[in-house]
Amino acid sequence: MTNEKRMPNSNAGGKRNSKRRYYTYRKASKKSEPVFRNETEKVKISFLGGMNEIGKNMTLYEYKSDMFIVDCGLAFPTAELPGVDLVIPDFTHVLNNRDRIRGIIITHGHEDHIGALAYLLKQANIPVYATKLTIGLIKGKLEEHGILNLAKLVEIKPRDNITLGAFNIELIHVNHSIPDSVGLAIRCPAGIIIQTGDFKIDTTPVDGDMIDLPRFAEYGRKGVLALLSDSTNAERPGTTPSESTVGDSFGTLFRKAGNRRIIVATFASNIHRVQQIMDVAKSMKRKVAVLGRSLENLVNVGAELGYLNIPKGVLISIDTINNYSDDKLVIITTGSQGEPMSALTKIATGEHRKVNITPNDYVIISATPIPGNERMVGNIVNILMKQGVEVIYENMYDVHASGHACQQDLKLMIGMVHPKFFIPVHGEQKHLVKHAMLAQSMGIPKKNIFIGDIGNCIEITNDEIKKLDNVPSGEIYVDGYGVGDVGNVVLNDRKRLSKDGIIIVVATIDSQNGYVISGPDIVSRGFVFVKENEELMSSAKEVAIMVLNSQYDKKYRDWNTLKTKLRDEISKLMYEKTKRSPMVLPIFMEI
Amino acid sequence: MTNEKRMPNSNAGGKRNSKRRYYTYRKASKKSEPVFRNETEKVKISFLGGMNEIGKNMTLYEYKSDMFIVDCGLAFPTAELPGVDLVIPDFTHVLNNRDRIRGIIITHGHEDHIGALAYLLKQANIPVYATKLTIGLIKGKLEEHGILNLAKLVEIKPRDNITLGAFNIELIHVNHSIPDSVGLAIRCPAGIIIQTGDFKIDTTPVDGDMIDLPRFAEYGRKGVLALLSDSTNAERPGTTPSESTVGDSFGTLFRKAGNRRIIVATFASNIHRVQQIMDVAKSMKRKVAVLGRSLENLVNVGAELGYLNIPKGVLISIDTINNYSDDKLVIITTGSQGEPMSALTKIATGEHRKVNITPNDYVIISATPIPGNERMVGNIVNILMKQGVEVIYENMYDVHASGHACQQDLKLMIGMVHPKFFIPVHGEQKHLVKHAMLAQSMGIPKKNIFIGDIGNCIEITNDEIKKLDNVPSGEIYVDGYGVGDVGNVVLNDRKRLSKDGIIIVVATIDSQNGYVISGPDIVSRGFVFVKENEELMSSAKEVAIMVLNSQYDKKYRDWNTLKTKLRDEISKLMYEKTKRSPMVLPIFMEI
Repeated sequence: MTNEKRMPNSNAGGKRNSKRRYYTYRKASKKSEPVFRNETEKVKISFLGGMNEIGKNMTLYEYKSDMFIVDCGLAFPTAELPGVDLVIPDFTHVLNNRDRIRGIIITHGHEDHIGALAYLLKQANIPVYATKLTIGLIKGKLEEHGILNLAKLVEIKPRDNITLGAFNIELIHVNHSIPDSVGLAIRCPAGIIIQTGDFKIDTTPVDGDMIDLPRFAEYGRKGVLALLSDSTNAERPGTTPSESTVGDSFGTLFRKAGNRRIIVATFASNIHRVQQIMDVAKSMKRKVAVLGRSLENLVNVGAELGYLNIPKGVLISIDTINNYSDDKLVIITTGSQGEPMSALTKIATGEHRKVNITPNDYVIISATPIPGNERMVGNIVNILMKQGVEVIYENMYDVHASGHACQQDLKLMIGMVHPKFFIPVHGEQKHLVKHAMLAQSMGIPKKNIFIGDIGNCIEITNDEIKKLDNVPSGEIYVDGYGVGDVGNVVLNDRKRLSKDGIIIVVATIDSQNGYVISGPDIVSRGFVFVKENEELMSSAKEVAIMVLNSQYDKKYRDWNTLKTKLRDEISKLMYEKTKRSPMVLPIFMEI
Repeated sequence: MTNEKRMPNSNAGGKRNSKRRYYTYRKASKKSEPVFRNETEKVKISFLGGMNEIGKNMTLYEYKSDMFIVDCGLAFPTAELPGVDLVIPDFTHVLNNRDRIRGIIITHGHEDHIGALAYLLKQANIPVYATKLTIGLIKGKLEEHGILNLAKLVEIKPRDNITLGAFNIELIHVNHSIPDSVGLAIRCPAGIIIQTGDFKIDTTPVDGDMIDLPRFAEYGRKGVLALLSDSTNAERPGTTPSESTVGDSFGTLFRKAGNRRIIVATFASNIHRVQQIMDVAKSMKRKVAVLGRSLENLVNVGAELGYLNIPKGVLISIDTINNYSDDKLVIITTGSQGEPMSALTKIATGEHRKVNITPNDYVIISATPIPGNERMVGNIVNILMKQGVEVIYENMYDVHASGHACQQDLKLMIGMVHPKFFIPVHGEQKHLVKHAMLAQSMGIPKKNIFIGDIGNCIEITNDEIKKLDNVPSGEIYVDGYGVGDVGNVVLNDRKRLSKDGIIIVVATIDSQNGYVISGPDIVSRGFVFVKENEELMSSAKEVAIMVLNSQYDKKYRDWNTLKTKLRDEISKLMYEKTKRSPMVLPIFMEI
């Protein structure tokens, strides 16, 4: 789609046009009139997640006896957390204040904003407010956890107002990489606080519905106490390209693909990306099949709720792709981050039941690697290329547009909202610092900018941002069914085990006289090939025998001291012989 | 330093000027006249490393009964190889052909070109040829391994010729991120092969000694059979910036630092970077202290051999930094990749004995993250910023220049050498493919381009590149003192252990009747907090008792079947209760 088609007075493009907003001011409803701030009042904000880290966003607002939460997301574990499936916020502070919390508002349907909701609702059934698509995605989550029937979900629209105790909150439409995203205008007697949520400024969005900048500007005119703004792309200069540019690239690339089969990997939640792929596919008379559970789910929810407009006759089941020739097919798949268990990885490595790679495939990775995933994405590209596949990736074409505002857009937001205090959120320290520098460059005094950390609690008055005592906060690890049962001890053990493995020394000992009745046996895992290291294992056994013998006939046997000695001696031996430090675990059985 | 100073006719800059080469042709010595190719002859090349992967470069040339090796490097392990310290090539093919190998030529002193040499020389004492600095660095390596006295090291200069059996090899000076790097013109009766080694085209190098393009061009004129060229930056358009641009940036940044202490993190081997830091420091009347063993070593070797020109009175010991105020100090440190054990990480986390971070520090990370290290580098930036330190990183200023040629330079090399056959080397598949596309775009027919893989062996004649049977090749893991004793079984165990830990079931059993005399005891590590999961552990114990009881009084006890059953039952229980799959290890002691 060209920019021309997006001109406000053009009627081309049909239905989607009706939603266009641009820079015309809508008449604000009476309900949305701001509450002017009282200079003696104060409002508190606690950062339970998402501040100075990646993922698991959660912010708690507090005015006198009333509280409400914005977002309740999860984070995906880094390599530092082996075996951990998900990371969710510590809910202690929320549960301690359960009676004061009037609701949870979710800004959009991404995992780092909705993913921990089910875990919280299991412990405290707080009403949840969100837009239609977000509610749709939350429902799916809650169903998985078997608590859909219990939850109180309230669907709201942009420009709607919600009253939560002394707070009145208006939802403001923003652009992002998932539809139906909102920012918030939070009003209480202390003043107006704007929290942008994740946003970008897209002047030619795929659904025609540009970010409601006029509303942000209106609040700016009225006077905003504080702005909490998305810092993700604060390091990137310029403006974020429109999602529509990706559609143009797909047009070019689909033509280049010629008679080949096209496989596009993208984020499962990007409905507009999927929309554009389907539109371009239709125009080139190709069918589209969708692969990967999360993408299938998104297509279903998106189509059902009217956010995805599937062109007639385009979508086919992945099970029927063999009925079509390569030049008539597009497969949309998950795995754009090179995730080892994703559909794209399985296809690339020949482990997928339904799709096999051939040199007649043309693969487009329609995403940018999230920091930390660069190597995984590179691996998939290499694996595909070794099979003779042409792969379009990274910056070769405009096959991805970020969902977050870059520096120029961030400055525009700050300029329009014109807040007294500025709080960069949603980013690592380096993003927050960079965002703070942007605000400073626009004239916001350094003392009016707060760079926070998880657990920080601040009080905002008309005069200052004051840092109060931290609130309980942190990371809770979800591993399988276990929530919080994996902590640092277990993780350190896992890391240690992964480095040099484990040596187990077992012996059955006569509790009467300390004689070793059976063993000591030495068993190792993850240490060395035992078959090629029999000598080493015999030495270990000799050391164990020596240590155990030293205890014979002693009247009092201190098993703990004996275990420590055994551990020390075996560790010393192993380090001397191999320069490795396996975990040494003595187990004694007494009879 | 400005470009002006680098003009060929300028005498500014002193001594270093004398080495400048530019585009004036030196008279070639008689010895270096090329051997014209005989159309009936053929030459073989085996790729023992560095082809289609990162690191551990090693190429084997073969003509009739003569062989020689180019480079012998190591790779650093990825996250997929927990506990592994280094990865070296499999030397089987080299050792099988020990009697035919006339020498090893090393192109430059980086770990991925020299790092495996000590391991090879221990098994086969082959003479090693390299330039002065490279020899200096190799000596350090061999000394660590205690084999310096045994090795035959031959120092050679660019434009020197070495005869190795039927091969005659000329060294050609190239620019790279370490001085004294060379490419090779390899001549044998089958023709001339050019192997660039790692290179960039730096028209204003810090030492004034530009890549010997004239020599490459001369060979091009004479007729080159095949070109093996560095593919590292084949994805990057344009030309690689000169190392001198980094010096200019340092000038700007050191001024911005004002009264703060400056800390620059860089690659330990980049002598010219260190040179520029020292030069700028001197001009600003700052002292320089060096931190990190590998950097200290480089400064010593570099200065001793004349590659580093330490300005008088600039270098101080790290132990004396407290005698100087912040505005009089520059600390050069290792750790530009955010490596957890590096000096920069220790400084940032407050774990360094000699240097503490204060908000009056100004940190410059003078490097680009190697793919896979982005997250680690980001972490260090965040940790430093949390302490109020200003950090210059990534693309904020030109604080790093790559050592590898970008697309435009690569095409220049192809155009000058004008080879009949083209073989992209030194890169992952995606780099090789991209480099091949560049060559194709310049008119080299696809059939004359060979994209290889590790272990490939090719035969080049005047007519074609023919792929022969693969030679033995692969990765050998070095873990502590062990070379090759960690293989896939051990690594898989380590990965499994790191994911969900281990459960050990121990029992002492009466071998006569199968009765359990002691136990079963359940011990776990890296699985769950046992204290909070006593119930789970009791269930496991019950299951173990049940399985063991089923064996009582049976005449023949098949311990393996029993162990398998125990493992299956406990695994099933654990998965049902926790959705985790710890390793289950039954150990029976018979008495």
